[in-house]
Amino acid sequence: MAEQTGTSTALLTDHYELTMLGSALADGTGKRDCVFEVFARRLPSGRRYGVIAGTARVIDAIADFRFTDAEIAQLEATAVVDDDTLAWLADYEFSGEVDGYPEGELYFPGSPILTVRGSFAECVVLETLALSILNHDSAVASAAARMSGAAHGRPIIEMGGRRTHELAAVAAARAAYLAGFATTSNLEAGRRYGIPTRGTVAHAFMLLHDTEEAAFRAQIEKMGVDTTLLVDTYDITAGIETAVRVAGSELGAIRIDSGDVGVLARKAREQLDSLGAKDTRIVVSGDLDEHAIAALRAEPVDAYGVGTSVVTGSGAPTAGMVYKLVEVDGKPVAKRSEHKASRGGRKSALRRYKPTGTALEEVVYPATRAPEPGQYDRELIVPLMRAGQPVDDLPTLEDGRQRLRRALVSLPWEGLKLSGGDPAIPTTFT
Amino acid sequence: MAEQTGTSTALLTDHYELTMLGSALADGTGKRDCVFEVFARRLPSGRRYGVIAGTARVIDAIADFRFTDAEIAQLEATAVVDDDTLAWLADYEFSGEVDGYPEGELYFPGSPILTVRGSFAECVVLETLALSILNHDSAVASAAARMSGAAHGRPIIEMGGRRTHELAAVAAARAAYLAGFATTSNLEAGRRYGIPTRGTVAHAFMLLHDTEEAAFRAQIEKMGVDTTLLVDTYDITAGIETAVRVAGSELGAIRIDSGDVGVLARKAREQLDSLGAKDTRIVVSGDLDEHAIAALRAEPVDAYGVGTSVVTGSGAPTAGMVYKLVEVDGKPVAKRSEHKASRGGRKSALRRYKPTGTALEEVVYPATRAPEPGQYDRELIVPLMRAGQPVDDLPTLEDGRQRLRRALVSLPWEGLKLSGGDPAIPTTFT
Repeated sequence: MAEQTGTSTALLTDHYELTMLGSALADGTGKRDCVFEVFARRLPSGRRYGVIAGTARVIDAIADFRFTDAEIAQLEATAVVDDDTLAWLADYEFSGEVDGYPEGELYFPGSPILTVRGSFAECVVLETLALSILNHDSAVASAAARMSGAAHGRPIIEMGGRRTHELAAVAAARAAYLAGFATTSNLEAGRRYGIPTRGTVAHAFMLLHDTEEAAFRAQIEKMGVDTTLLVDTYDITAGIETAVRVAGSELGAIRIDSGDVGVLARKAREQLDSLGAKDTRIVVSGDLDEHAIAALRAEPVDAYGVGTSVVTGSGAPTAGMVYKLVEVDGKPVAKRSEHKASRGGRKSALRRYKPTGTALEEVVYPATRAPEPGQYDRELIVPLMRAGQPVDDLPTLEDGRQRLRRALVSLPWEGLKLSGGDPAIPTTFT
Repeated sequence: MAEQTGTSTALLTDHYELTMLGSALADGTGKRDCVFEVFARRLPSGRRYGVIAGTARVIDAIADFRFTDAEIAQLEATAVVDDDTLAWLADYEFSGEVDGYPEGELYFPGSPILTVRGSFAECVVLETLALSILNHDSAVASAAARMSGAAHGRPIIEMGGRRTHELAAVAAARAAYLAGFATTSNLEAGRRYGIPTRGTVAHAFMLLHDTEEAAFRAQIEKMGVDTTLLVDTYDITAGIETAVRVAGSELGAIRIDSGDVGVLARKAREQLDSLGAKDTRIVVSGDLDEHAIAALRAEPVDAYGVGTSVVTGSGAPTAGMVYKLVEVDGKPVAKRSEHKASRGGRKSALRRYKPTGTALEEVVYPATRAPEPGQYDRELIVPLMRAGQPVDDLPTLEDGRQRLRRALVSLPWEGLKLSGGDPAIPTTFT
């Protein structure tokens, strides 16, 4: 089931992958045993950790990577590759192995996030698809994790779908949920991933009605008093007064979507309390990012709505991961020009901890030469696909959510600061 | 044909649209005649113009906005709305009118980019879908237009698919092409939109082979000498020497993907010329944005490959457009709190020019009160849907490409500067 396009993921691919394939099939090198590795040379500027997201989507997308008649006809019509290559593609089915960091795991510069093994031909064509998914989803999850931390247990609803591509929105909702968001506004994310969805009304609903009171009454009539009334369409103080008059002191929540939400939340709390609506929650939204959320920590805010900043990675819209050939027929290979040099060879990784459970360093080592195991080491890589099939016990979205929660509390405290800095722990290559 | 998801676009929607719908159907306000308007309160910081992209995709997505049994079952299972609302959604088919700026048109703060008219109920549910598409595609096109300008006629290939969501990649390739890019690496964009695709090899192909020479020979064997050889895997000078020795002086191009590409291009040009390969082109890539492209104007570069920066909007990954209710039963409505106030009423727009053809101002006026027509005015809005159906002569992608080319040369010269500044022309509201 090719959920991404309704047909196949096979053309979500860069042209050069197929031209490389054509040449490699022709000269026989396409059969060589290869290892490709996904890693990030660096974290986005100032970030102290990255969060892996999208791995499960990569596995699904590889399963849907088939060149059906429609894809073959397109490649033939545009003469991307020759007939021999087309014939090979028509039979394509990934038969290799994939290992990697599970979703919700932290990563640092050089962490071997995903390792794809098989013939050059079958692995090279997966580059763009794997990177697209991991770069997008990890960028969102990395930003969302900072927001979740800043919110300090207060729930966040993801509501940024309108600020990003309509299907990126669905993946962004998933990545934000993985990183600790409570809910999403996106209905397709609810369907596809079982994420709880939430929403009440927009300003349009208020303006549709002749008066604010009429709008509140209509909403309560349908949704009950445990709903969230939007009080900032006209005058917030008057809006809150009307809200409590119409709903009573059992009103579930009010939402403030504009202005200095900290000041407004404080005034609103006082007003609600004075009206006897002591349990009515205050939801704030409107251009919030991790810094704005942190600044609201002392304010009487009960929940946050976050849109633009989370779906665009809060200044880092892509994770900058690359997919590099690191081994051919058992021998390490690496680009050797002065710039963008990389480390050859198949790798594995562990995280080393203090006895207290605080992370010390990321140790990246040749897969065939594991270091002396330390008492507080934790291996980071899990099998994901074997013989082209997903392993039976693939981690779930809920697993990832819990994994990230545990991982974040293991960081040295500087690692959780929102200000710019170095990676929370160093990466050591042995 | 629901190209976006294989089924329907109906759940690419925020939860609150359906809860608003439920309340509005129940109290009868859902039948009120409404006008919703898409506009941007401001351009991204420092930008002097924005470029509309995605309009054609919005029209397609509205046609595919149907609640089939699958969507209804999901909404029922998650109790998003009640049975009356579900019954209404099952029959949903947009029957209203859409007008807007055609793709490739410039926009400025407050430009009425898209106007959707119909009952509140049928229009309110389109908010997220319309905004997702326009915000994403316009962000990419706006960045791409700056790059195309900086490239000054040299072709740019879009190759950023791996840095963004796998399907956002396809839309990004379309938006970049609209904004003057010559080609894309994305094969799905080739299939879906007929954009020419290009690609040759990555470093993986070089590393797969025992020597650089073997890789070059394999590539030329398959693709001929009019191909692009990647010369920076090991040592660029040695790479160019080998390239010309293997391919001869008829070699099509070399690509340099790392290092100080300006300096390297100059050295490469000298070396190629000295080897007699005077017509061999130089393609550069690697973290280029509009500023890097502009800085290369004096260098002997023949084509650019641009990835990350274009698909992420070069610092502005979303256009920040909003979808606001501006008219109910013929009366203007607008949010009136201190913050984020907006202008009510259905609007139209024209651009006013000097006799020389230079744009002077964007005039936004109430749709029913057109200003005295000036000799050098140009109306900006075209019909897009009538009675729920796309109009017959919808502008094509190629139309948009040409429209943008014309529009950009009409800007005051300051408007084309890459440095931060105010919008190139002011918006006047009458």
